[in-house]
Amino acid sequence: MAVLLAGHLRYDFERPESLANDHLIFSKGHASPLVYSMFRAAGAIDDAELLTFRKFGSRLEGHPTPVLPWVDVATGSLGQGLPIGVGVALAGKRLLRAPFHVWVVVGDSETAEGSVWEGFDLAGHEGLENVTAILDINRLGQRGPTELEWDTAAYATRVKAFGWDAIVIDGHDLVQIDDALDRARGAARPTAIVARTVKGKGVSFLEDKPGWHGKALDAEQAQQALAELGAEPSRTFDVPSPPAWRPAPLPSPKTPDLKRYAEPVATRKAYGEAIAALGAARADVVALDAEVSNSTHAEDFKKTAPDRFFEMYIAEQRMVAVAVGMQVVGFVPFASTFAAFLTRAHDFIRMAAISRADIRLSGSHAGVSIGEDGPSQMALEDLAMMRAVHGSTVLYPCDANQTAKLVVAMAELRGISYIRTTRANTPVLYAPEDEFPIGGSRVVRGGGADDRVTVVAAGITVHEGVKAADELAGAGVNVRLIDAYSVKPLDARGIAKAVRETGGRLVVAEDHWPEGGLGDAVVSGLVSLGVTGIALRHLAVRDMPSSGKPAELIEAAGIAARDIAAAVHALLA
Amino acid sequence: MAVLLAGHLRYDFERPESLANDHLIFSKGHASPLVYSMFRAAGAIDDAELLTFRKFGSRLEGHPTPVLPWVDVATGSLGQGLPIGVGVALAGKRLLRAPFHVWVVVGDSETAEGSVWEGFDLAGHEGLENVTAILDINRLGQRGPTELEWDTAAYATRVKAFGWDAIVIDGHDLVQIDDALDRARGAARPTAIVARTVKGKGVSFLEDKPGWHGKALDAEQAQQALAELGAEPSRTFDVPSPPAWRPAPLPSPKTPDLKRYAEPVATRKAYGEAIAALGAARADVVALDAEVSNSTHAEDFKKTAPDRFFEMYIAEQRMVAVAVGMQVVGFVPFASTFAAFLTRAHDFIRMAAISRADIRLSGSHAGVSIGEDGPSQMALEDLAMMRAVHGSTVLYPCDANQTAKLVVAMAELRGISYIRTTRANTPVLYAPEDEFPIGGSRVVRGGGADDRVTVVAAGITVHEGVKAADELAGAGVNVRLIDAYSVKPLDARGIAKAVRETGGRLVVAEDHWPEGGLGDAVVSGLVSLGVTGIALRHLAVRDMPSSGKPAELIEAAGIAARDIAAAVHALLA
Repeated sequence: MAVLLAGHLRYDFERPESLANDHLIFSKGHASPLVYSMFRAAGAIDDAELLTFRKFGSRLEGHPTPVLPWVDVATGSLGQGLPIGVGVALAGKRLLRAPFHVWVVVGDSETAEGSVWEGFDLAGHEGLENVTAILDINRLGQRGPTELEWDTAAYATRVKAFGWDAIVIDGHDLVQIDDALDRARGAARPTAIVARTVKGKGVSFLEDKPGWHGKALDAEQAQQALAELGAEPSRTFDVPSPPAWRPAPLPSPKTPDLKRYAEPVATRKAYGEAIAALGAARADVVALDAEVSNSTHAEDFKKTAPDRFFEMYIAEQRMVAVAVGMQVVGFVPFASTFAAFLTRAHDFIRMAAISRADIRLSGSHAGVSIGEDGPSQMALEDLAMMRAVHGSTVLYPCDANQTAKLVVAMAELRGISYIRTTRANTPVLYAPEDEFPIGGSRVVRGGGADDRVTVVAAGITVHEGVKAADELAGAGVNVRLIDAYSVKPLDARGIAKAVRETGGRLVVAEDHWPEGGLGDAVVSGLVSLGVTGIALRHLAVRDMPSSGKPAELIEAAGIAARDIAAAVHALLA
Repeated sequence: MAVLLAGHLRYDFERPESLANDHLIFSKGHASPLVYSMFRAAGAIDDAELLTFRKFGSRLEGHPTPVLPWVDVATGSLGQGLPIGVGVALAGKRLLRAPFHVWVVVGDSETAEGSVWEGFDLAGHEGLENVTAILDINRLGQRGPTELEWDTAAYATRVKAFGWDAIVIDGHDLVQIDDALDRARGAARPTAIVARTVKGKGVSFLEDKPGWHGKALDAEQAQQALAELGAEPSRTFDVPSPPAWRPAPLPSPKTPDLKRYAEPVATRKAYGEAIAALGAARADVVALDAEVSNSTHAEDFKKTAPDRFFEMYIAEQRMVAVAVGMQVVGFVPFASTFAAFLTRAHDFIRMAAISRADIRLSGSHAGVSIGEDGPSQMALEDLAMMRAVHGSTVLYPCDANQTAKLVVAMAELRGISYIRTTRANTPVLYAPEDEFPIGGSRVVRGGGADDRVTVVAAGITVHEGVKAADELAGAGVNVRLIDAYSVKPLDARGIAKAVRETGGRLVVAEDHWPEGGLGDAVVSGLVSLGVTGIALRHLAVRDMPSSGKPAELIEAAGIAARDIAAAVHALLA
């Protein structure tokens, strides 16, 4: 790291926002003392701040986060830094044509994570010569030897099989390091520097010893270690400057030319057409998909802006990682796959929130309403997963015009936002002019003083609610049907008003497991607002679904119009 | 598949439960018509049932599930069948010493999933010659060409780099197939048969054409296809029989000799000691860990039963996959890592529920209470994730004696069960004789008619609740503190009784994001039971944590004793 910092990393620590800067990502985030020591060596922080490490209120957290301006992304969940770095490199090469290089420090233990190979594979496939992985092969994991120990040849063989060049070095030989970093930056292909290192090198009682992972030395041990190392503390080094380069200015954004829908259409199709319109209007919007773009309809974006569409193949972790990487350098990513398969990227989404990343996710084929493909393809836990992401926004539109407006709103949102779309064509309930503020809701049926029950639905169940409400109205029972398209933040006040006006009688219907979804959100929201006297019927998917026609499965799950009507009758009985 | 079925798969379709049977796992679960055709060809199902494919009520779902007795696990989320099959093979070789062979059919598209390489890596590392991967290299994914198309050499290079042998064949040449299957079964190492295939082979209008993925032929097209194929439908083949082999009988289970705790100890430590006691008492219990066994304390099991401990290294997806594979052949797996990192395996856990698998997961280092390591290591969404798994059990003990009892109970549970443990030493609240039924709760403080507020806590917040309750009692305010150790199923009735007896006043305190955890569970449970007039204060982690001492972070999150006391006062004001 000393050789990298003093001779190869082109970085202006006074202008971390510069797009000309190189990127340094510690995929092995537990090496945070080294990261912070580099910042100290560059003069970016002082000794006093360095000594706040891991203390409450310090920017120097146990694992690096972008609370520090020189840190791109949070790391500490292993196996993420490499695919994220590949995303930064992909944006640098294909979108920005930037001179920067991406350096990723990868631990040996973390190469057991499949996501690391998703990163290697993508960089190899895309031929990203602007990324270098520095593999720290120190043989020791947290609890003992790693799987491959010091078999640097095995590491080299693996990365080469995934399309990288490999340079095997003694990771303590400064000349070999300098040469390898030079060659890696100048290479025609992505390069892995496979560095054989000794953990605790230079300190007799630490060298290659297990049992020291994550342990600090006491004062006496530290004294001895410093004496053995013979290092001069508190030195500051000059860091190479980035070139005087700026990206070509983007064309001015236009207002997206959204489609206007009148006939039944799937919200997934409206998603595709909306991101395509956004992509035509804004040059900073990019789309990624995990090899199902003909199902999620991200392919519509590809047709409009093929140079800003990125095929991630069936690798949801790297899809989210690359989205995170691209927003590091200013892009506005929309990433899509089946909602069920976003569970594969849960840890990446969790970490993206810690990275303070702004990314937009779309999950299609939600719920039992997909029909014949069966439960493996049905997202029934995605609302729970996405609600429990810090600072997230969770949207679930029921018609195409609403979808289009929500997609446009997502482009402006901070943090992790998520839109859940439906496979089937659904009727259009709203006008193209209607607005759907984040945190809002819509009254779809009822609204008068004679409403007797509130029905809260979202997405596919709104249409079941409409059928139920119309049938009930025909029988003289007025219900107030609320479309809770903004699941988080939820319009708890709007729903509370309806519930109070309907005598506390409430039906919630959702195409999701009972836990953590719309039902939990509504009930917690109401009780937190002090709404009392709630009489609830919560319709959700309670048994493992099978295959069948969408209508059969919606009925089998007990979330169909007839079930909503029955719940209303039960509340009134 | 015809060559495999008629000549290599040793399987008694009348006795699918026999441990002598080979295993056939379609990692590419979307090839379900082929799976079901094989069952038809073996005579296990008839033509009439075959024609129920994807219909409501049929066992022949869109993707295979163990609703069929010949299917080990559900597939359909790609990249899972191979690591699960490796788990079956690992159990076959190391635990059962069984003669069976595991055959896994892997799609080319799904090799983009990192989890596939976690599977290859483990089998290579463990030298599992009893598993064969049949790679169907047909060049076409759902929406067009795969990443590597027909580059069979690239596939072979990759699998060899991960310790497998590779046999590249023409996947339509029956002699080559037969020979490759023979060699694979007899090989000294795990073998991948890299089969170059043509999608739709033998039908002129389908061969190597995109746009047919997941599409059925109409009657006329089907007629033409059958004519071109010249196949004779409805034939039944003899399938080779498994050898007459039975596993050595296991020693009779004993009652686990649990430790008795009196002094403060971490629940993660009690977890490790409890699974060690279980492992000593029962020979069918196995433990897996993702390279953090000195933190989760799974290492205690390793010391007791090293032959039944499996190091999965830092690869949480394969840890869950191998656990699923091992329960296929009758073992009782406990798999552990930091709770935060179980999010990495979310899709595997979701699919395990569809597989009707019985697995036990332990997540340590939950919540902000871990302290200095920072948010990347803090599970703050795991309760939401695990509650929203179909049929799951979610446990969160607060002391060591309770942990031990819950671990023993988990061994008997069906489905996915989860125990959340704490990093810090916590006081012992319960006696070793106390019982903690699943679905129960405990009153820790109060219980009399003069309790004025109910406080529901679990795990670490129980101890904050104790401090608050004792302080409040000293000031003359009695609260009823409930330990909701069984988060799912929740003792909603017990909590409802307390809430009703305390005038509806309720505080919930949890070391978790506000969404989907204990608070949502309690409120939804109460409202579903018709409890009205709830006045709630929900204490949860609402801002992104940083590093700091555990007590500092618990206070910063507003879930400390003082916050509970303040919430009680606010409710009484």
